Amino acid sequence: MKKNTTAGLLQRFSLFLFLFTFSFLVNAQVITSPDKNFTMKFALEKNGVPTYELTYKKKPVVKQSKLGFELKDSPAMAEGFTVTKTDQASVNNSWEPIYGEQKSIRNNYNELLVTLTQKEQKDRQIRIRFRLFNDGLGFRYEFPEQKELNYFVIKEENTEFNLVGDHKIWWIPGDYDTNEYAYTTSKISEIPGLMQKATIDVHAQWPIKTLAVQTPSMMKSSDGLYINIHEAALIDYPAMNLNVDPKTFKFSAHLTPDAMGNKGYIQTEFNTPWRTIVVSDNAADILESKLILNLNEPTKYKDVSWIKPVKYIGVWWEYFVAGKSSWAYGTETNVKLTDDFTKLTPNGRHGATNENVKKHIDFAAKHGFDAVLVEGWNIGWEDWFGNWKEEVFDFVTPYPDFDVKALQKYAADKGVKIMMHHETSASATNYERRLDDAFKFMQDHGYNSVKTGYVGKIIPRGEHHDSQWMVNHYIRVAEKAAEYKIRVNSHEAVRPTGLHRTYPNWFAQESARGTEFEAMGGLAPDHATILPFTRLMGGPMDYTPGIFQTDLSYYNKDNTQRVNTTLVKQLAYYVTMYSPLQMAADLPENYERFPDAFQFIKDVALDWDDTWVQEAEPGDYVTIARKAKGKNEWYVGGITDENARTATVRFDYLPKVKNYIATIYADASDASWNKNPQKYTIRKVLVNSKSVLKQPLAPGGGVAVSIKEGNAQETKGLKKL
Amino acid sequence: MKKNTTAGLLQRFSLFLFLFTFSFLVNAQVITSPDKNFTMKFALEKNGVPTYELTYKKKPVVKQSKLGFELKDSPAMAEGFTVTKTDQASVNNSWEPIYGEQKSIRNNYNELLVTLTQKEQKDRQIRIRFRLFNDGLGFRYEFPEQKELNYFVIKEENTEFNLVGDHKIWWIPGDYDTNEYAYTTSKISEIPGLMQKATIDVHAQWPIKTLAVQTPSMMKSSDGLYINIHEAALIDYPAMNLNVDPKTFKFSAHLTPDAMGNKGYIQTEFNTPWRTIVVSDNAADILESKLILNLNEPTKYKDVSWIKPVKYIGVWWEYFVAGKSSWAYGTETNVKLTDDFTKLTPNGRHGATNENVKKHIDFAAKHGFDAVLVEGWNIGWEDWFGNWKEEVFDFVTPYPDFDVKALQKYAADKGVKIMMHHETSASATNYERRLDDAFKFMQDHGYNSVKTGYVGKIIPRGEHHDSQWMVNHYIRVAEKAAEYKIRVNSHEAVRPTGLHRTYPNWFAQESARGTEFEAMGGLAPDHATILPFTRLMGGPMDYTPGIFQTDLSYYNKDNTQRVNTTLVKQLAYYVTMYSPLQMAADLPENYERFPDAFQFIKDVALDWDDTWVQEAEPGDYVTIARKAKGKNEWYVGGITDENARTATVRFDYLPKVKNYIATIYADASDASWNKNPQKYTIRKVLVNSKSVLKQPLAPGGGVAVSIKEGNAQETKGLKKL
Repeated sequence: MKKNTTAGLLQRFSLFLFLFTFSFLVNAQVITSPDKNFTMKFALEKNGVPTYELTYKKKPVVKQSKLGFELKDSPAMAEGFTVTKTDQASVNNSWEPIYGEQKSIRNNYNELLVTLTQKEQKDRQIRIRFRLFNDGLGFRYEFPEQKELNYFVIKEENTEFNLVGDHKIWWIPGDYDTNEYAYTTSKISEIPGLMQKATIDVHAQWPIKTLAVQTPSMMKSSDGLYINIHEAALIDYPAMNLNVDPKTFKFSAHLTPDAMGNKGYIQTEFNTPWRTIVVSDNAADILESKLILNLNEPTKYKDVSWIKPVKYIGVWWEYFVAGKSSWAYGTETNVKLTDDFTKLTPNGRHGATNENVKKHIDFAAKHGFDAVLVEGWNIGWEDWFGNWKEEVFDFVTPYPDFDVKALQKYAADKGVKIMMHHETSASATNYERRLDDAFKFMQDHGYNSVKTGYVGKIIPRGEHHDSQWMVNHYIRVAEKAAEYKIRVNSHEAVRPTGLHRTYPNWFAQESARGTEFEAMGGLAPDHATILPFTRLMGGPMDYTPGIFQTDLSYYNKDNTQRVNTTLVKQLAYYVTMYSPLQMAADLPENYERFPDAFQFIKDVALDWDDTWVQEAEPGDYVTIARKAKGKNEWYVGGITDENARTATVRFDYLPKVKNYIATIYADASDASWNKNPQKYTIRKVLVNSKSVLKQPLAPGGGVAVSIKEGNAQETKGLKKL
Repeated sequence: MKKNTTAGLLQRFSLFLFLFTFSFLVNAQVITSPDKNFTMKFALEKNGVPTYELTYKKKPVVKQSKLGFELKDSPAMAEGFTVTKTDQASVNNSWEPIYGEQKSIRNNYNELLVTLTQKEQKDRQIRIRFRLFNDGLGFRYEFPEQKELNYFVIKEENTEFNLVGDHKIWWIPGDYDTNEYAYTTSKISEIPGLMQKATIDVHAQWPIKTLAVQTPSMMKSSDGLYINIHEAALIDYPAMNLNVDPKTFKFSAHLTPDAMGNKGYIQTEFNTPWRTIVVSDNAADILESKLILNLNEPTKYKDVSWIKPVKYIGVWWEYFVAGKSSWAYGTETNVKLTDDFTKLTPNGRHGATNENVKKHIDFAAKHGFDAVLVEGWNIGWEDWFGNWKEEVFDFVTPYPDFDVKALQKYAADKGVKIMMHHETSASATNYERRLDDAFKFMQDHGYNSVKTGYVGKIIPRGEHHDSQWMVNHYIRVAEKAAEYKIRVNSHEAVRPTGLHRTYPNWFAQESARGTEFEAMGGLAPDHATILPFTRLMGGPMDYTPGIFQTDLSYYNKDNTQRVNTTLVKQLAYYVTMYSPLQMAADLPENYERFPDAFQFIKDVALDWDDTWVQEAEPGDYVTIARKAKGKNEWYVGGITDENARTATVRFDYLPKVKNYIATIYADASDASWNKNPQKYTIRKVLVNSKSVLKQPLAPGGGVAVSIKEGNAQETKGLKKL
């Protein structure tokens, strides 16, 4: 975040709060962002319909757009309003995240709070709070406690995003249950023609029948404005999709319903999540925006000292490499938790065996990883998926060939943690009732982090991955985990909205199409250049990069799958995709084949003092530099899509004058995602703050750079860049 | 049960098992009951549709009726079957319930097990197991584990009960959520014309849109056959209503759907509940039938020594006596569990105060009651109902005026238990996730029994009180409670099906229109003569009898409500309605006004060596005598409907020759349910096994008799009956 270069003016934990409140009783209200680039105008239409509009550098971003709600069994809160109070405030402070891309985050906005009253509906009130930052707008609805509005059910939220043109958009289909679609890039007007093709098969999907896309929704206008629509602080409310009008370019909220088709059970006093619109004429600014984090609440956890980043390997990728291993232990396809699993017929391919786990622990210890994820350790995998079965797993009973206590001791002796795996098969009710036992089991056996999974159709049946009840479920799990000092990495959960600020032990999520799909059809070479502008806007992703053996026929000549990147691009991901949780996802033996490249994964930091997005264009390229937290080390990652390009890496964030050793991991000149992906060069050079690296990237390739201080001995003989 | 007089031939725990199995490969199979009164014929229709028919003493009871299933997304299991195996067996043994109406229960049946195969559906198999007892038929479907049928979803069960005539029927409307309807008595053909009127308002009801009634369904044919249709061992399956064809008199299964409209998620190996048809030409036999208990599994609990009957009073009836007390502490109507309830505005009418509870503990101790139920002790009652709110109660936080620890000590010092109350507001998800904490809290504070409540719309939203998920929920609660040695009395749960044999700590339920409705419109004077033939067929009811102050204008002259019985009829209920849990539901001060009548409630047993239904006719009268378990004490209760009648009480179960003191509690000659209901006589006489009491009962009245041994002093001057 470039503005953060001014952070030096602020002391640690300093709070600069300038609060001015005053009231109006007029129907149109205008606020501007602190830097004056944004203007937001609130107004009531003649029939008392609340609306807002947003401009950036005098260009319209969102035309007059309606706000409000349809309620169930109650008159709508959509019209007939009068403005009965307005308040304005300005805030400029900063705060320090527990982990993150920056040591300190500036929180600087002008606020407008409009109180609206429906005089003909027994004076029912709603408030709309707008916060206009230098990077965009956030607004939410607030339902104060009031006599005539204690409890109600939302039929739909009316919020509109009335866009001004036929923008380019990077989108995935609207869906109540999955975010694991591949991105389509098109004009808004082209979405209808592309929707069917875009709606590829995904486990337990529930595509929205009307035209809708998901958030974070990334767009670019023909005149070069980048617009990102998402939400912040999704708590006790369903996730929002966006209805699309391909002719008028009007987007509108489409909340995820429950089994009854209802879209939110509300008890006042209640605040909705924030609707966020991040805008810039520079794509890099979108990635540097901390607007969503700023709109989330600080954590209520008192002790956060135990919440630390994790670099891990796992018994995982081998499950995706055809025929190699299986989560299941037995050959049977109909098992119950009450069965005696020692009586099953072993399939001979079980991955989570004592021997295999020990091998991974050895590797993790040797190379300095914090943890080893082990999937498939617990009974129930024989028929875990697809049956809408409630009691799939008990989370405490290992397979006969996984010795919990022996492995606990083995790992502890080597200073490594085993990472727990709680696949729920989307049976949230079963997980909730076993949660205390499951976390107690972890605590008793030395586990301090868990990967959760929600593959399948949700139980309670009729709920969705993104419905209000499930939104609350994930938070319940995070809070319960915190009681046990356990970190959570959720897969197939609702996509993040910055809640890792409030629940910092929920430190990573999947919630998008990740590396596993490289083994199931592959990811498009531009996929990872889109993710930072979409999925990652909400929070850290457990993308599980680091696949060195990209051609999967290596394992089995019949396997035609391949990871659609060069090896070096996999290294770059550790920098381009921020997460406090990073996996080295490939098999240990593959890392042993490329020890020099592997060194970057071993070196790269997980937590950062500062971040500089050097160049970025969604769907094309991303180059990011970061400073390791508390260390004079910097890491740079640059990636490109299917096109070769030359990345420009600057070093102007380095302390002046001094030279540092940059280790540059680069694609070989004849490498590309589909030819010679494992060919790379590694060179060491001296750089200083004035250096500029022009680095060719292969098609589907990348660049990774580590920058460290070097003593005379180490720098001897190194050339300047 | 009259057959039990032969029980003397059997030793305790003796097992007489005569098992003959043999196989046929024909399509029609006939079995008879051990006493030859019943004949059941299984046959396949030409298209391979399985059917059964039932006769009793050569009269048809159920004409040829179809069996089978409609499945979701899979071909039906309804036709195309061939019989590939049949097995027969005979069983004659007896077992001892942990508590009950008899010390020993005879289990005597002939069994037919038919294995059916759908050759054109990949040899899918289903088994139907018929057990023909001397009191009727039970049959269930069994899905063996098989390659082509591991998991499936039931769309509907096809089971038919094709009745032979336009029987008289005592019925309540089919409903997915409530059993708390008043009974209607009519011909089957009259049901359509009466359904609308019968579907009175009940909290959280979901009347079935097509014509349906609930089970237990009690009928009487024009030629004097009594027929009762219900189910036994309802586990992991939705409850069954009965579709009614008012022209052909064909009834058929109508299972309770979930939110998706599905009617059961099945994993093989699986057995459905038993469908039960109890038949006799003597109404008393219906009440003596132990067929449903016999079809339930013995308990798996290892230690049952802690499961004992309970006689209790409670802070309860005062909530129904207009204006007297409230569950809620505060006047607020919008509260959250996170609120500080000490800050609420007290409404001044809170029932569960330290003072009031102590008064009840004193009374319980003085009169020998085991426990005091206290409702309204915990935070959340201010807005507990009607909002489909999930987090209504936490089950561990008392109101400010209820001192858990002080009351625990106060009760313990007096040898009385406080009975916990867990109203869930039908939020089963909330209850499940707090269950361990809630039971731990009980254990820590000396509670060993809990009354649960499920008032409102179920959460998971879209589930019903009687759907498969909730059926499993109640059992989960019972099993979890057993881990803490806690007894459960569930209100508003699915009606019982004999599961108190398997889960004996789930020792009573409401699941019907009980005494509370006497304060909300009143119960018809014949209501309690119907209940034993309907609701009580499944298991013990917490009917909460014992209301002495029947005219509720006593509390408030504007209160026009009244309990539609005489005082004596309330005494008789303790015998006519079997339960190991019995409440003396009236206010302590009312018992103090009638100490002589109250003596019967104090004396009456809760557990029995034997039971003799002396005379019974559904809707008209019931007279039952029982011998107290392990004591030479007998208790008789007789009730009538709105008509006066003379009950005939025999004493032929008394040991021969010897005289006993009978204390006869009788309606006064000018008493009736609506005039002088509190006028009664109490007389002591000597009776022996040859005595017969002809006792006039008032309209809406009853008679209660206690019979004890007396020494010379006690019997002196007593007349013979």
